[in-house]
Amino acid sequence: MFEDLATLIPVYRDALLCDVLPFWLKNSIDREYGGYFTCLERDGRVFDTDKFIWLQTRQVWTFSKLYNTVQKNPDWLECARIGAGFLRQFGRDSNGDWYFALTRDGRPLVQPYNIFSDCFAAMAFFQFGIAADQEWAIDLARNTYCRILTRRENPKGNYSKTVPGTRPLKNLALPMILCNLTLELREILPSEMLLWALEKLPNEILSFYRPQLRLLLENILPDGTESDCMEGRLVNPGHGIEAMWFIMDFARQFEDKKLIQKAAQIILDTLDKSWDKQYGGIFYFMDTKDRPIQQLEWDQKLWWVHMETLVALLKAFEYTQNFSALEWFNRIHDYTWTHFPDPQFGEWYGYLNRQGDVLLTLKGGKWKGCFHVPRGLLLCWRSLENILKYLQ
Amino acid sequence: MFEDLATLIPVYRDALLCDVLPFWLKNSIDREYGGYFTCLERDGRVFDTDKFIWLQTRQVWTFSKLYNTVQKNPDWLECARIGAGFLRQFGRDSNGDWYFALTRDGRPLVQPYNIFSDCFAAMAFFQFGIAADQEWAIDLARNTYCRILTRRENPKGNYSKTVPGTRPLKNLALPMILCNLTLELREILPSEMLLWALEKLPNEILSFYRPQLRLLLENILPDGTESDCMEGRLVNPGHGIEAMWFIMDFARQFEDKKLIQKAAQIILDTLDKSWDKQYGGIFYFMDTKDRPIQQLEWDQKLWWVHMETLVALLKAFEYTQNFSALEWFNRIHDYTWTHFPDPQFGEWYGYLNRQGDVLLTLKGGKWKGCFHVPRGLLLCWRSLENILKYLQ
Repeated sequence: MFEDLATLIPVYRDALLCDVLPFWLKNSIDREYGGYFTCLERDGRVFDTDKFIWLQTRQVWTFSKLYNTVQKNPDWLECARIGAGFLRQFGRDSNGDWYFALTRDGRPLVQPYNIFSDCFAAMAFFQFGIAADQEWAIDLARNTYCRILTRRENPKGNYSKTVPGTRPLKNLALPMILCNLTLELREILPSEMLLWALEKLPNEILSFYRPQLRLLLENILPDGTESDCMEGRLVNPGHGIEAMWFIMDFARQFEDKKLIQKAAQIILDTLDKSWDKQYGGIFYFMDTKDRPIQQLEWDQKLWWVHMETLVALLKAFEYTQNFSALEWFNRIHDYTWTHFPDPQFGEWYGYLNRQGDVLLTLKGGKWKGCFHVPRGLLLCWRSLENILKYLQ
Repeated sequence: MFEDLATLIPVYRDALLCDVLPFWLKNSIDREYGGYFTCLERDGRVFDTDKFIWLQTRQVWTFSKLYNTVQKNPDWLECARIGAGFLRQFGRDSNGDWYFALTRDGRPLVQPYNIFSDCFAAMAFFQFGIAADQEWAIDLARNTYCRILTRRENPKGNYSKTVPGTRPLKNLALPMILCNLTLELREILPSEMLLWALEKLPNEILSFYRPQLRLLLENILPDGTESDCMEGRLVNPGHGIEAMWFIMDFARQFEDKKLIQKAAQIILDTLDKSWDKQYGGIFYFMDTKDRPIQQLEWDQKLWWVHMETLVALLKAFEYTQNFSALEWFNRIHDYTWTHFPDPQFGEWYGYLNRQGDVLLTLKGGKWKGCFHVPRGLLLCWRSLENILKYLQ
């Protein structure tokens, strides 16, 4: 089994360096207006030129992070710079909040209703600031982070359609992303913010965990209890698993072994419940009581769910040496690599139906860009190296 | 073929009177708080108690309409009254705009961001006013209609996330529903409003039609041109087909035979393009250039799409005697009746996957209620009767 892991290093590394990054470098850069095309067909042709801030910022992050941690490839820095310049010029409204979408030439299309644009912008400009040695980018990352904290209790602001007070559900996504973001930016955050995050975020994320279900809920009431309605029973297994690797990395930074063990066990328990025993793959959405779900895509198999699960399982094994994580990794690895990559045109499909057939041939769209696949490949590659070092 | 049609009358009539209406009367009435449960499992058990205004108002419409046009069944009027009373008390905000969702006991949950709540409320209170002989309900219908017209240029108001001016796409749904609503309410509308609607609405709907594609687009620019982006290339065949029967009914009222012919032809053309030649059924979404779509549910087969198509085809045949409409009706009838009804627990499934298997077992949810199935059964039954009279 140790030997098998060694053979996987070139699989993850080469997919990243020889397939995925070249695909985006070749097809996504908009040299006329700056920024990136993310709506790419199977063969890389652009099918929509809108610039979604989630994906613009995430691509800046990806190329900057790789430049900072893998190799000083000038093409990667150049790619990051083309996105960062476009975003710096056009990405924010007059309050400094990040739009959700821009036109190709940078005119605002969709308002800053979505605070995750800001989260990914903060990640992006921090890594870019280091890569390009630009203090303004570091400042922009820090200022964006602070602004997120002021908006976090009411992240949608005036764009929220929910009547305040009636059923004030809290969603898992924001504390989860803040956990990852805080760890990313820890060097540049004021120490009181870091202390706040350290005390607050892991507990906040774990308040979504139900011991009797052995799953994380997607939405809970402010007092931590469940709401017995469609949203309150909703489970997004990929979210829960991704949140657990964020927690494990956070806990490892602060040497909290108990928390690492707990998060690793939740990953395994979530997979026990969300693995499709009939067709393989991990379901996109579930209901805690197996009641009907409103998400019509509930049974589909998504690239990011599987990629983040691979990352989570390797980290779980790296940090806990629990061989159940390695067994699950083997199963998810096999499913993922036989279903998502496109050997003909490169990169990965994003959306499969329940049976595992390709549902949409796109390589990028409104939600899939240059992020989960390259980040996951990088993190798996690194974890595999660490595990092998550890085992030798 | 004429005989076949005669045998279909009891199929549609009995499904309405002996299956669908009893299902809702038995399972959906909330005798404690008023209004209806619409989130119903396969066997009728309630899985969520929230009250979505679209579905509350549509159920009031259905039972009132049947009371007004089929038989003076006191259970139907009682059912309509239980919804109308709840809605009158809790349904509107202080501006008179209709919320999107309430809790079981009537507290507002989701703001009035969605003008279709108002459209269906106007339909509902007009029919209920006639059924129960209540002038306040007629006034409420008229006032709601007028308020819709004042809001129609900016229907989402402050809840819109679109930046004004950048890409001001118009959507097919509102003119389409207004066409049907105006015809419904024609007796109680001021004559200048009726004249305005008569001149404006059919042309507005047909401005979404592309002769070279022989399809209606879902979104166009204000000058009537296409926008070559994901939203601009989007086709919702069920919407297009339903809009055409609204237009045919409208045109028939005002004796515009040319318009009826045109709408009937568009129905046939839309089916030519949207029928799934591999698995049968009508696709939910398509792209005019066959480029990737962002709707993950694009290939699913939905109950309302098929029901509205049956209505449209029978009306097309009734109004034009074009036998192509009857051929298509036979094909869609066969697909629909072998896939959607649930012989074991009654009523119809709403959501099938591309292959035609049941994707969600619910009989009602956030979007499916007591509306498309009973309205469609009633309208098909009536059309079949008219056709047979005509042919005899």
